[in-house]
Formats: sequence, structure tokens, C-alpha cells
Amino acid sequence: MSFKEQLSFIVELDKLKAIYRKALIKCDNNRYENSAEHSWHVALTANVLAPYAEKDIDITRVMLMLLIHDIVEIDAGDTFAFDEKAVLAEQSDKEQMAANRLFGLLPEVQYKTYLALWNEFERAETPDAKFAKSMDRVLPLIQNMQNEGGSWAQHNVSKQQVINRNKHLAEIAPTLWEFVLEQIDLATQKGWLKDA
Amino acid sequence: MSFKEQLSFIVELDKLKAIYRKALIKCDNNRYENSAEHSWHVALTANVLAPYAEKDIDITRVMLMLLIHDIVEIDAGDTFAFDEKAVLAEQSDKEQMAANRLFGLLPEVQYKTYLALWNEFERAETPDAKFAKSMDRVLPLIQNMQNEGGSWAQHNVSKQQVINRNKHLAEIAPTLWEFVLEQIDLATQKGWLKDA
Repeated sequence: MSFKEQLSFIVELDKLKAIYRKALIKCDNNRYENSAEHSWHVALTANVLAPYAEKDIDITRVMLMLLIHDIVEIDAGDTFAFDEKAVLAEQSDKEQMAANRLFGLLPEVQYKTYLALWNEFERAETPDAKFAKSMDRVLPLIQNMQNEGGSWAQHNVSKQQVINRNKHLAEIAPTLWEFVLEQIDLATQKGWLKDA
Repeated sequence: MSFKEQLSFIVELDKLKAIYRKALIKCDNNRYENSAEHSWHVALTANVLAPYAEKDIDITRVMLMLLIHDIVEIDAGDTFAFDEKAVLAEQSDKEQMAANRLFGLLPEVQYKTYLALWNEFERAETPDAKFAKSMDRVLPLIQNMQNEGGSWAQHNVSKQQVINRNKHLAEIAPTLWEFVLEQIDLATQKGWLKDA
């Protein structure tokens, strides 16, 4: 272990506080949310909603995945979930390089652990990663519902896009999926989501 | 479990993003740091520095303590670590009420778990809580050292105050304590801490 390496990683993390997302913080003059505070919110949301996971999950791994999932944005920037596919594909390459550089600041053993966990999250194939990713998708829905459609309304997002983005919840946490479907219907009725 | 209760807690958490601390975010135009992004940073810092813990710790509990430790500020506001004792004592009462209200939004079983964990953190008697609290104290030091003394310099803090605040590290994580002492000396030489 080299403390100097760990310190450089911890210092670098500060930069995630300057990466802004499309979500708005209503209670703070509708400013944009940054990826650091989002990561906190979603890790804690996962802990609160863990009882709804259909399969056994390891909540420690889920929380850690969510704490590190956006760190790559320090180099690669944030993309909007509903951007075009070509944009998202290019972003994926940038994020892989970012993961190597940023987790690479850490001592070898921690580098390998974090990089593997981040890749597992990105692939979303294991129960832990599926649950973590579903939390990262359901929280913006909760926030948009509190904020007259928030980023959906601002970016002209459709009902079907939000269904597609969250439909894996049906398998991962059926109770939450029912809730999501109700919210999507409500948002469409209110005109916050395009009815398409 | 009542999903409605959990949802109200998750929505309420957004407010921690509007609670500002004394720390400055250098890479984001030196704006003040908020308690949500701080909570993310310190939970992840604990994970990275866990290998230095002198006693066995349960990193899941440590991370969860740190994710929830500042939630009470939604009702009670932030206080500066180096405020006068009378101010800090009054704050403690406010925070207890806040913990009851905020964790009380959750279903009974989660309310009890979170409240117990928050109280354990506040008391700082168990190895998990001691380690978590030491992380909450060492991270601002790391940040201030990156920012020409940051909140220390702005608030005329003394070397002895920072030593007193961190000295428990000698027992909890001796390697980190050595680092902290070096940094305090350096900060004093540079005039970022009062030499008293």
C-alpha cells in the first residue's frame, strides 16, 4: 500500500463535485445537480430500497459500485441518458480510458478491485450490478416527479424512453417497477413526458 | 415495509444538497462544499483508507455511518468544527431532534437501524464509529492542504485546535496520524494555521 497514491486519488475525487448533470435541485434555486452529490444520494437510496431486491444482493458491493460509478466523468464528462446512441458509444470509450487513469492512481490491489467493480456495474449482468444500475435509473425518476418533470420536460423525453430505461426493474424489483409505471403514467398525463 | 415512507425519506434527502459547509471546492470556482457531496467523498475515502485501521472494522457499517452522518443538518444546519463549545452543545440537541424526525420518515425497522447507527457515530466509542469519525476529520485537512489552508486560514484556526481534533488518529490509524502531524507542521510553516 502506498499512502501517497491513495492520497492523490482522494484529492482527485474533488473534481467530481464540478461535473454537472441534467437534474435540477429544486430546493437549491433549481441549480444543476453534480455527480458527487448524486453518487451519495443513489448509494443511500440503494441501501433504503435493498429490501425490494428480488435476488440476494451484497449491499456493500452495491453501495461501493454506486459510490464509484460516476468517477470516470472527471475525465469523460457527463452524458444525458437520453442522448443519441452514437454519442453514448463514443462516451463509453472515453469512460474506459478514464477508469484506467483514475483508478490507476490507486495502489495496484485497490486499482484492480475498483476497476473490476466499475466494469461489473457497466456490464450490468450480475444481481449486484443490475440492482445498482436500476437505482441509478430510478432516482432521477423520483427527482423528476418532484420537480414538474425536471430534466424530462426540459429535454422533451418520451414515455417510451423512460419505460425502456427502467423496464429491467420488472425482474430486479417488481414492487418498484409497479411504482415506476404509475409514475410514468402520471408524468404523461401531466405533460411532463411526451406521449410516444 | 412501506414504500411510501421510504420514498418520502429519499425525496427529503435532496435537501442535504442545499446545506453548505465551510470547505471550499477549488476546482469549482472556490464555491462552498455541500454536505451531500462531502458525505460521498468521506464514505469513499473511508473505503480507500480502510487498510490503515488499527482494529478490525466493518467497512459496510463505516460507509453507511458516513453516508447518513450529516443528514441531521437538513433540520439543524451545519456548524463549523471550531465553533465555541456552547454553540456546539446547542447544536447537539437540535441534531437529536432532527435525527428523530428524519430517520422517523422511514419504516420502523429502518428508522431504528439508521438512528442507532447515527447515535453510534456521534458517540464515537466503537471501532467502526471511531474510524468513521476520524475520516470525517481527516478529509477536511486533506482538502485544506490542497487549498492554501482553506477554511483554517479563513477562520483563523490554530495548530493546536487541529491537533486536538485529529489526535485520536494516533490510536485508530497510526500511519495516518504521522501524515496528519506532518501536514499540520507544514500548514503552520506556511502560515495557514496560527502557531498556537
